[in-house]
Amino acid sequence: MISDAIKDEIRAIVGHEWFLDSPEDLVTYSYDGFLREFMPDAVIVPGDKEEIAGVMKVANRERINIIPRGAGTNICGSSVAREGGIIIAFHRLNRILEIEPESMCAVVQPGVVNADFQKAVAAYGLMYPPDPASMFVSTIGGNVALNAGGPRGVKYGVTRDYLLGLEVVLPSGEIIRTGGKTLKNVSGYNLTQLMCGSEGTLGIITEIIVRLVPLAPAKATLQATYRDLDHAATTVSAIIGAGIVPTTLELMDRTVLDVISDYGGAQFSDEAQAVLLIEVDGEDILVEAQGKRIEAFCRERGAFQVERAGTPEEADRLWQARRTAFGAVASLRPNCIVEDATVPVKMLPAIIRKIVEVADKYDLQIGVLAHAGDGNLHPLIMTDLRDTEEMARVDQALVELVDAAIEMGGTLTGEHGIGIAKDRFMTKEFSQASIQLMRGIKRVFDPHNILNPGSFL
Amino acid sequence: MISDAIKDEIRAIVGHEWFLDSPEDLVTYSYDGFLREFMPDAVIVPGDKEEIAGVMKVANRERINIIPRGAGTNICGSSVAREGGIIIAFHRLNRILEIEPESMCAVVQPGVVNADFQKAVAAYGLMYPPDPASMFVSTIGGNVALNAGGPRGVKYGVTRDYLLGLEVVLPSGEIIRTGGKTLKNVSGYNLTQLMCGSEGTLGIITEIIVRLVPLAPAKATLQATYRDLDHAATTVSAIIGAGIVPTTLELMDRTVLDVISDYGGAQFSDEAQAVLLIEVDGEDILVEAQGKRIEAFCRERGAFQVERAGTPEEADRLWQARRTAFGAVASLRPNCIVEDATVPVKMLPAIIRKIVEVADKYDLQIGVLAHAGDGNLHPLIMTDLRDTEEMARVDQALVELVDAAIEMGGTLTGEHGIGIAKDRFMTKEFSQASIQLMRGIKRVFDPHNILNPGSFL
Repeated sequence: MISDAIKDEIRAIVGHEWFLDSPEDLVTYSYDGFLREFMPDAVIVPGDKEEIAGVMKVANRERINIIPRGAGTNICGSSVAREGGIIIAFHRLNRILEIEPESMCAVVQPGVVNADFQKAVAAYGLMYPPDPASMFVSTIGGNVALNAGGPRGVKYGVTRDYLLGLEVVLPSGEIIRTGGKTLKNVSGYNLTQLMCGSEGTLGIITEIIVRLVPLAPAKATLQATYRDLDHAATTVSAIIGAGIVPTTLELMDRTVLDVISDYGGAQFSDEAQAVLLIEVDGEDILVEAQGKRIEAFCRERGAFQVERAGTPEEADRLWQARRTAFGAVASLRPNCIVEDATVPVKMLPAIIRKIVEVADKYDLQIGVLAHAGDGNLHPLIMTDLRDTEEMARVDQALVELVDAAIEMGGTLTGEHGIGIAKDRFMTKEFSQASIQLMRGIKRVFDPHNILNPGSFL
Repeated sequence: MISDAIKDEIRAIVGHEWFLDSPEDLVTYSYDGFLREFMPDAVIVPGDKEEIAGVMKVANRERINIIPRGAGTNICGSSVAREGGIIIAFHRLNRILEIEPESMCAVVQPGVVNADFQKAVAAYGLMYPPDPASMFVSTIGGNVALNAGGPRGVKYGVTRDYLLGLEVVLPSGEIIRTGGKTLKNVSGYNLTQLMCGSEGTLGIITEIIVRLVPLAPAKATLQATYRDLDHAATTVSAIIGAGIVPTTLELMDRTVLDVISDYGGAQFSDEAQAVLLIEVDGEDILVEAQGKRIEAFCRERGAFQVERAGTPEEADRLWQARRTAFGAVASLRPNCIVEDATVPVKMLPAIIRKIVEVADKYDLQIGVLAHAGDGNLHPLIMTDLRDTEEMARVDQALVELVDAAIEMGGTLTGEHGIGIAKDRFMTKEFSQASIQLMRGIKRVFDPHNILNPGSFL
């Protein structure tokens, strides 16, 4: 609990109207994309970094927890007040400060929505590649804090690959700058990359410098349909192994296709056991050649149908199915757990076989959705949190999947984060020595453990 | 000084023949690519990570300094025993452990020479892009520790952009693994990137996982000659500003061209005040189109001659000049200081004007060489360390250049590192709060400060 005197002190810093603590406001900020709810003590909506620095000083002195939160779309529970405290919301810090084509970079505030930013840089013929599924809602600040990925990761990488510099408010209230506008920078330890993916546990990001790339002038979208899930999976590693790097390479299995059909998202052949959705981008001539090569590849490896979008509308129609997937699955059962274990691409067929096996073993409905081209799996476990018996089986299935991914040289989480969703699994991926280093780093930045405590460390 | 008993203890770990402490051996390891010499107490050449872990335990217990060293090509003095101690040499840990085309990655030991590795992956149709000038000598371990760049940085980025995971021996002797073989990985703090560019101050790298990309099937090499240095510089920011991303975009001024001519490296027009060396790579058809577009760009912006290599031999001849530059400059005066200040590309014309102005002001011979496409300057200051009067002017010029780069939103060092060359400048780029964070991180990894002490922190 925060005393009235301290609340008044914080109100004086951010302004009365930007300090929220009515029950209805607190409820709004009590959950994010993950499954658990925690009521915060208050929510602030600061207008600039000085206000944040002022609040941090008070919070640090009074040992009040601070939880930064973008759009709250993360699905690992890294933006909820697990141990109470104040949530910082960023919707007033939502300006694009600079777009600099000659230096191929831009400077934004953390509250800028990803898709708005993409649109703004496209006007300059530029592209900001990270494209999490949440991009129409999620913020660049949240994307950096979670090191968000997305379908384009196969070719373009993830948020960290475009992050050049940051402005960060520390728990002490000090404001530091890391990195800068240059692609090359080897000055001191890479604090920029340390912040990226730190899930709000090290500092409050107040400004972000990102690298941009030229917007690809053309793209081609293909959909390959298979009678056998395994053939689809082996096509993926074959494409990558042949040195073809598509922009996106998505996989959906029969379970997901059925749900999409029922939901009215699209129709698929009765024989379809799996679909690959493939996109390439670049110069016209190149896209044409790559598209043909991929089509041949898919047919050779068992696709009985390969559709290629002839127009942007057709491409949109093909994507519609993929985009519908989460909504469709979410409508089927009360809850859907989106797993995020990621393996080296070579192991993709093996981990998909494992998912099918685990679903069968624990009698669960698990749809296989994957950013297959970079080995980033999203098994969708359809369940009901209130059914304790089924949840016990879900939990066993999760443990078995995570163990398998680690065993195959993979990771607990490719793009969703650890948060409170996977903190219990940390020792599966990291030795005690590694965890001690992370805890030590946390103490250096945040000696009183006020930043997002109860999250992954 | 290390006692005989401790020397014997370390000899027992690494084997008698791999513990060197004869004066002639120590002299060999007393300098690197930078200008200063420090005699180490001993040199060890371990055969595996367990030996390194064993030595680290002894060193940590006895507070003996440990300095890891690849090929010693770095030019910031980050691999010399500034405060005495034991140098670890890696030439026995020089195996490529795995090349995995289906997962687009490879695993190597730190002592693998960069160019050898490039050749090995090329056999699989793959490419490891980081190409520091030292690549025929320097090791991947050293490249990671220094976050090495190179000419291809414009299009492909630097070492950190290809680093996926590490195995590291800590001062405690514990061995940790960071990252892995997946492109996407958001599990815990990014210790991989924290190690990259840490200049041997946090841990000993014993295994490296890197990302690979498809080898470009074609390239085009162009040389554009200008009567005006400023026109060459503005061409660079215009090319980048137009969304064309060449593979390399190198700039040489008249001073450098003269030295190259005198050295017999190549001949240039008497009217040439600057030359741009430009390379594009990719699919045939694309390279053809981009080459033409760049040629037109150069001519529009004042190039009076644009040569395009028609054969690999011609391309080699054009590159010959650039490759000769360092050797040629080094032969002119007893010493050559290669500066490395880096600015946003937009500021390239301004920083080049500043270099010309500073050379004039302090009556110094400074050649302008630059990885211009990413704003990475390499002014070559030709001097004589024994001439204290001139060295005082060199120092003033260095300070003025560094200040100018920082003022323009740049960094102290784009790709060469801080080491003992630029540690005194750290406060120009970083606030006390940032430096305290870096020192705190150093203490977490290396509480007794045995790893490369006296280097940049």
